[in-house]
Amino acid sequence: MLAMDTIRLYDLAVRDDRRPSPFCWRAKYALAHKGLAFEAVPVAFTDIPALFGGAHKTVPILEDGSKIIGDSWAIADYLDEAYPDRPRLFGSATERELCRFLEASLFLSAGRNVLTIVIKDIHDHVKEVDREYFRTSREKRLGRTLEEVAAGREDRLDAARAGFDSVRLALAGGGPFLSGASPGYADYITAGFLLWPASVATIPLLRSDDPLLSWLGRVQDLHGGLGHKSPLYPLSG
Amino acid sequence: MLAMDTIRLYDLAVRDDRRPSPFCWRAKYALAHKGLAFEAVPVAFTDIPALFGGAHKTVPILEDGSKIIGDSWAIADYLDEAYPDRPRLFGSATERELCRFLEASLFLSAGRNVLTIVIKDIHDHVKEVDREYFRTSREKRLGRTLEEVAAGREDRLDAARAGFDSVRLALAGGGPFLSGASPGYADYITAGFLLWPASVATIPLLRSDDPLLSWLGRVQDLHGGLGHKSPLYPLSG
Repeated sequence: MLAMDTIRLYDLAVRDDRRPSPFCWRAKYALAHKGLAFEAVPVAFTDIPALFGGAHKTVPILEDGSKIIGDSWAIADYLDEAYPDRPRLFGSATERELCRFLEASLFLSAGRNVLTIVIKDIHDHVKEVDREYFRTSREKRLGRTLEEVAAGREDRLDAARAGFDSVRLALAGGGPFLSGASPGYADYITAGFLLWPASVATIPLLRSDDPLLSWLGRVQDLHGGLGHKSPLYPLSG
Repeated sequence: MLAMDTIRLYDLAVRDDRRPSPFCWRAKYALAHKGLAFEAVPVAFTDIPALFGGAHKTVPILEDGSKIIGDSWAIADYLDEAYPDRPRLFGSATERELCRFLEASLFLSAGRNVLTIVIKDIHDHVKEVDREYFRTSREKRLGRTLEEVAAGREDRLDAARAGFDSVRLALAGGGPFLSGASPGYADYITAGFLLWPASVATIPLLRSDDPLLSWLGRVQDLHGGLGHKSPLYPLSG
């Protein structure tokens, strides 16, 4: 039985307890960075409307006592505000703005290609109850069938990989983390972006000599090995 | 006659005292941000080997008394270190790392296309003494003639513009500066990147309704209108 004060993070779950959501990953890392114990409550896509009276259309949703917060950025802001004495996610307002730039940049450079590579695998991994919802909503959004979106995905692997060149360049001139000597929200955004395909993609996104892998391994090892706690496919091969 | 303690920033200059270097722009902004008076000393490409015994192959070079610093990042670091009581360029080591990511990201998303759009215009604007050096060094580096690199540049305007979508997205969700409520090094990197084509490009890079223009105008107005002090072509049309 959970104590009243357990923090819960409602976390998208698919078959085999895989956790593919990049936004949930960064929220889990945000909680861990703050040193806050939490339960990552597995939810299906179609569970979300039943949570908190349908107040939020997406996960993550954070439940901290009577506080219910949706949206990964709002969650990060809440955590820094509610727990100011714990390690900060954003050392300054400028850090936060620059993390927003990083998110925008990665979604533009890699988001579309990674999406087309993983979308059919996500469909094939969602729980039975989510299958129809996922197909219908995504096909409407994308204007094509999932099979059409995924077609030829092998041919987009190089472009998808190149979409992370900015991360490689930044790490090559600095590191060991994107945030510098110690990990921060920029690392969590980017790691979540890669744990998304790693959770479900049945073709490996990266080459085995990709320098991103050692950085990602460092992030996965953080906070008691948070990034190893859900099943993953090999991200490289 | 200059006092001994005048800070000098050796700044690439071409015809009509235009100042195209994105790296020099950010260094000038860095000095202005610190509230330091400086002289932006115009130099031709072929002047650089004669400066300080050829210690630096590129500008900007900062001369602050007996301190001679090359490279825009080294200059920024030096200024924060030597003038710790003045407004900081980097509020934290993480801010600096995230600015490095931003630089890498912009060069990857827009650098190549902007280069091909401006390179022949730079050639046509460099001082007579630089003409041969510029053509020879750039053609060797690029493996093609300047005319071949520039050919069809109109067709690359859309792609060049799209290379700044990450900046537009970040500003749309925040602002008024990329660094947040007040301007910072991320703004100076990005403004320098646009003042580069604005200094020499004989075709306008941006559309007249581009939201980048109002942000760039804000940056140009800063620090006594620094971004208006050298001649510019219209950046939009």
